[in-house]
Amino acid sequence: MSDPRQYFTFADNGEPLELDCGRSFGPVTLAYETWGRLNKKKSNVILILHAFSGDSHVASHEDADLQANGPGWWEAMVGPGKGIDTDKYFVLCVNILGSCSGSTGPSSINPETGKPYGLDFPVVTIGDMVKAQKKLIDFLGISKLYAVVGGSVGGMQVLQWCIRYPEMVRAAIPLATTMRHSALCIAFNEVARQAIMTDPKWRQGKYPEDDPPELGLAVARMIGHITYLSDEAMHRKFGRRLQERDDLSFRFESDFQVESYLNYQGTKFVRRFDANSLLYITKASDYFDLNKEGDRAINLLAGTVTKFLVISFTSDWLYPTYQSRELVQALKRNGCDVSFCEIHADCGHDAFLLPDERLINLISGFLNGVENDE
Amino acid sequence: MSDPRQYFTFADNGEPLELDCGRSFGPVTLAYETWGRLNKKKSNVILILHAFSGDSHVASHEDADLQANGPGWWEAMVGPGKGIDTDKYFVLCVNILGSCSGSTGPSSINPETGKPYGLDFPVVTIGDMVKAQKKLIDFLGISKLYAVVGGSVGGMQVLQWCIRYPEMVRAAIPLATTMRHSALCIAFNEVARQAIMTDPKWRQGKYPEDDPPELGLAVARMIGHITYLSDEAMHRKFGRRLQERDDLSFRFESDFQVESYLNYQGTKFVRRFDANSLLYITKASDYFDLNKEGDRAINLLAGTVTKFLVISFTSDWLYPTYQSRELVQALKRNGCDVSFCEIHADCGHDAFLLPDERLINLISGFLNGVENDE
Repeated sequence: MSDPRQYFTFADNGEPLELDCGRSFGPVTLAYETWGRLNKKKSNVILILHAFSGDSHVASHEDADLQANGPGWWEAMVGPGKGIDTDKYFVLCVNILGSCSGSTGPSSINPETGKPYGLDFPVVTIGDMVKAQKKLIDFLGISKLYAVVGGSVGGMQVLQWCIRYPEMVRAAIPLATTMRHSALCIAFNEVARQAIMTDPKWRQGKYPEDDPPELGLAVARMIGHITYLSDEAMHRKFGRRLQERDDLSFRFESDFQVESYLNYQGTKFVRRFDANSLLYITKASDYFDLNKEGDRAINLLAGTVTKFLVISFTSDWLYPTYQSRELVQALKRNGCDVSFCEIHADCGHDAFLLPDERLINLISGFLNGVENDE
Repeated sequence: MSDPRQYFTFADNGEPLELDCGRSFGPVTLAYETWGRLNKKKSNVILILHAFSGDSHVASHEDADLQANGPGWWEAMVGPGKGIDTDKYFVLCVNILGSCSGSTGPSSINPETGKPYGLDFPVVTIGDMVKAQKKLIDFLGISKLYAVVGGSVGGMQVLQWCIRYPEMVRAAIPLATTMRHSALCIAFNEVARQAIMTDPKWRQGKYPEDDPPELGLAVARMIGHITYLSDEAMHRKFGRRLQERDDLSFRFESDFQVESYLNYQGTKFVRRFDANSLLYITKASDYFDLNKEGDRAINLLAGTVTKFLVISFTSDWLYPTYQSRELVQALKRNGCDVSFCEIHADCGHDAFLLPDERLINLISGFLNGVENDE
């Protein structure tokens, strides 16, 4: 199976990446994947920004060698003839800085020590992630993005792109996201971090690759999974159905399907994700607050030509609709061209990732509208 | 400081307690406290049933010796001249079976081994807790309860009292509770249990008293605390305010007040609560499902003379109002006398514990109405 990712390394000999924490950092490698063909004017680029535990593998590849990598995390949305049509657009997705799926993060080798960075990795922000992505876009000779699209932590990156490089973004689609991480979201993230950091195997972040804090990471993921669903979705998916048993166990085993599901999700996650990366990415999202940057970062968008489509979902209690409305109002106050849609969906925060004709039509229609303006 | 609790032990020589799991169990000690005076007819008893992490100390005592025990967990509601008026009623609260505040639970000494039960303690149900309370009520020579009152897991006990001993309950006030534990609630409980059971210090429940799984228990409590609050309450109480610092730390410390609050709550809980008790009581609430017992347990109430006051709170997302409405409908279908009130409160599930004039007036008014019927 061939690796579908390409790699771009910068700040190795040249300028380091200046981070929001004040540190100069490098080298940085970014792993990314592409779909479709870049047109001659390089004007058909859609940058997709992934959520907290995502990676660059948004969709399957047509190339025979790469097909074996299987479907991606937004397979229903991205592909030939789909909502984000790879017959028309050149789609790009970059694994975020601080993650663990090809891009530099705390599990990467620190060239100064020959060992993984662990907690020597700098605490990066959503802005830092976007700054790194900008280096790649520059390297590819792309001066303007047709659209930036992302949900959740990906949506925070969308907003950060618009604020830091407004002249480069023609259209922006932040989904199921917020202008600032709420106390509730910080609370869940902090408990997830504590679950990892109290696991003795975490060892202050200096765990060996083959003996990570698996149990703590699994608990952290279970917490996450609850917040991605909704009361309704859990009732529909699991209710009080028992897991492979006819009656209650009267023991501390998984009696209910929902317990079994969470334990499975926790265990599965451990195989693909780095515990320290969870710490770093949750911290980056906790730090995200557009009212904090400058005076009010969103004011920087006054006069921008970027067109916005803001989307929220009725049962998303992590980033509820009122937070998207606040964003829409802030954008409107600054004279931005903004459309807003709240989609009725009972599946919670996860709704933005699930196949949904309405969402697909909404996004493809909006993208077509951007084109017609030119 | 004198102990305000009294102790009642049964099933030591006599009949053991027959549990829902099929085991016969004993001896059982129940710790309880009382306020006010039992009238001659023994007709003024209000039994208060505590929630998951509660104890028998509902309110402060007037007796000079006992005052030092300080205020109780429902101080605003219970006392002379208050909503549940101890000048009129003889108030009784029993620490639940399986808990760790005086009643028999997994941290009690197993007389057969001379060591704490740990996981040899039977998995008890809400029904078992109520069955044990009934033994105490019988022992006290009380044949009828003026009212049973409780929120959350206490509300489940209220319902179980009405179903098992309907002829003994004149009035019932289940607050912020449900007829059956939802998948969402089971999910949160399972993550809390996993946080404890994955702590190496848990040792399959056989930890020494002076070296319990503190870190896992603290994480479990943090999860609980998030679910007791609401998005609005967290925003109001904490927002994104920093904790004793002027700027972000760019380290894995508590930056925000909400993180600091949760960590404090977790650490504080460890000093007063037993990790195994958390496992047992969460399991009991997960098992709670009135549709499961018999065919539909609530049907057993057809023809009962118990008067019900069901109360829910708008921002309680653990036991949302729709679950109280389901209860009300089921009671009405069975011809029960039921009043229902949804109180507008932004403080989440915790609302039932917080001082609130509306709640106090509602409960005292309802209790007066019961009296006037006689």
